[in-house]
Amino acid sequence: MSKPLILVTNDDGITAPGIRKLISIVNEIGDVIVVAPNSPQSGKGHAITINSTLSFEELNLDGPQKDFSCSGTPVDCVKMALDKILPRRPDIVVSGINHGSNSSINVIYSGTMSAAVEAGVEGLPAIGFSLSDLKWEADFDQAEDFIRDIILKTIENPMPKGVVLNVNIPNLKKEEIKGIKVCKQANAKWEESFDERTNPHGKKYYWLTGYFNNMDESEDADETALANGFISIVPVKFDLTAYEYMNELNSIYH
Amino acid sequence: MSKPLILVTNDDGITAPGIRKLISIVNEIGDVIVVAPNSPQSGKGHAITINSTLSFEELNLDGPQKDFSCSGTPVDCVKMALDKILPRRPDIVVSGINHGSNSSINVIYSGTMSAAVEAGVEGLPAIGFSLSDLKWEADFDQAEDFIRDIILKTIENPMPKGVVLNVNIPNLKKEEIKGIKVCKQANAKWEESFDERTNPHGKKYYWLTGYFNNMDESEDADETALANGFISIVPVKFDLTAYEYMNELNSIYH
Repeated sequence: MSKPLILVTNDDGITAPGIRKLISIVNEIGDVIVVAPNSPQSGKGHAITINSTLSFEELNLDGPQKDFSCSGTPVDCVKMALDKILPRRPDIVVSGINHGSNSSINVIYSGTMSAAVEAGVEGLPAIGFSLSDLKWEADFDQAEDFIRDIILKTIENPMPKGVVLNVNIPNLKKEEIKGIKVCKQANAKWEESFDERTNPHGKKYYWLTGYFNNMDESEDADETALANGFISIVPVKFDLTAYEYMNELNSIYH
Repeated sequence: MSKPLILVTNDDGITAPGIRKLISIVNEIGDVIVVAPNSPQSGKGHAITINSTLSFEELNLDGPQKDFSCSGTPVDCVKMALDKILPRRPDIVVSGINHGSNSSINVIYSGTMSAAVEAGVEGLPAIGFSLSDLKWEADFDQAEDFIRDIILKTIENPMPKGVVLNVNIPNLKKEEIKGIKVCKQANAKWEESFDERTNPHGKKYYWLTGYFNNMDESEDADETALANGFISIVPVKFDLTAYEYMNELNSIYH
């Protein structure tokens, strides 16, 4: 069998330590092409660039992979890679390793996960990886063996269409990580608290801040698994239909 | 019963004809506060503003509602409204009327729908309305009675937590609209085709273009309902867990 073609992207930008670690892992598995944002794109969700233009350029970075720096969002990167950069459809798309958790509700704000979802919409197997440590100098070594294992298992066990994986890694040493748990998305949210300031011209402005509120203590929730020292894997879908509410809604609009 | 407090937002910007029509409809139902972007935010998905600041200002526009123009994305608008602008939690949040369809997979790219989803995350009833006509001068009068009906029904019949409504309106005259259908999100996607150009300095750049590919002919898909002249309502959830794949995934990671 020929080597798999692997597309790598992220939302922290092409020079972030998290993506460089992910590239080093997949370089041992297949032929690697990186198409990642040229600037930080955290919290960009599933944004695409409609009203302005996009560009990309090849960089010369260490390693056997090819690196392309793209001006857009993470989802733009996946679209450009598939339409303009890759020689053929990739066998798998991996996104991350994100600097910071994308567990529970964070999946909908995350550029890292939205890139994986966009690959899923294109019918490709895709995984987003995130480490529960926001720092630029976070230690990504600890989870290397687990990440390799999850990518190999995903290549060997094809996922159904319409599903991608959201993998979150606790900020623990390798020997402290208890294993891998398949989980559901925890019921959690951010409680907003905007930080109000006044600019030199007397006008008020705001920084988005807040605290994370986990309302879900169930055993199989990703937040619970992470708190207990496990790596969480949530299968994520992009058919957002709430099928379980259709009957009741039909009775209202009969 | 006191009048309901209604928050209105959108992604086309606070001056767009679509939101002004929606405001005129809800002004007859309750007390209305508008917090909407000060610039077009189409395709911004669930993006939030983390690395720069936000501001808002009150405008003096015709009508009994209060209008606040906000510098952020649609999701930022909902967050700022709830934390900094509204006197109390609103009874319902309505987003739109979007200039252009947000049916099928468009729900994940849409700023209009992401604003509704953000309200849902906050535990509020929320509806996104979209008209299948991208034009600024689209005719929003045709669906006025249907929109009023859907908002009143949603106030009277509380939705379960975790669900918001995605309402799409075909571009037809009022007498041509066949009614309202509860639907699932059609299986559809955009086929990318970037338009490549060369700038005056010899560097290539790209415009995102493509065509819509509906792969779903099922009777209860939103695209089918719209094609048959119905208004589609899809109940949308933001627990993205693919529960139906958890067993198989567990067998891989047992």
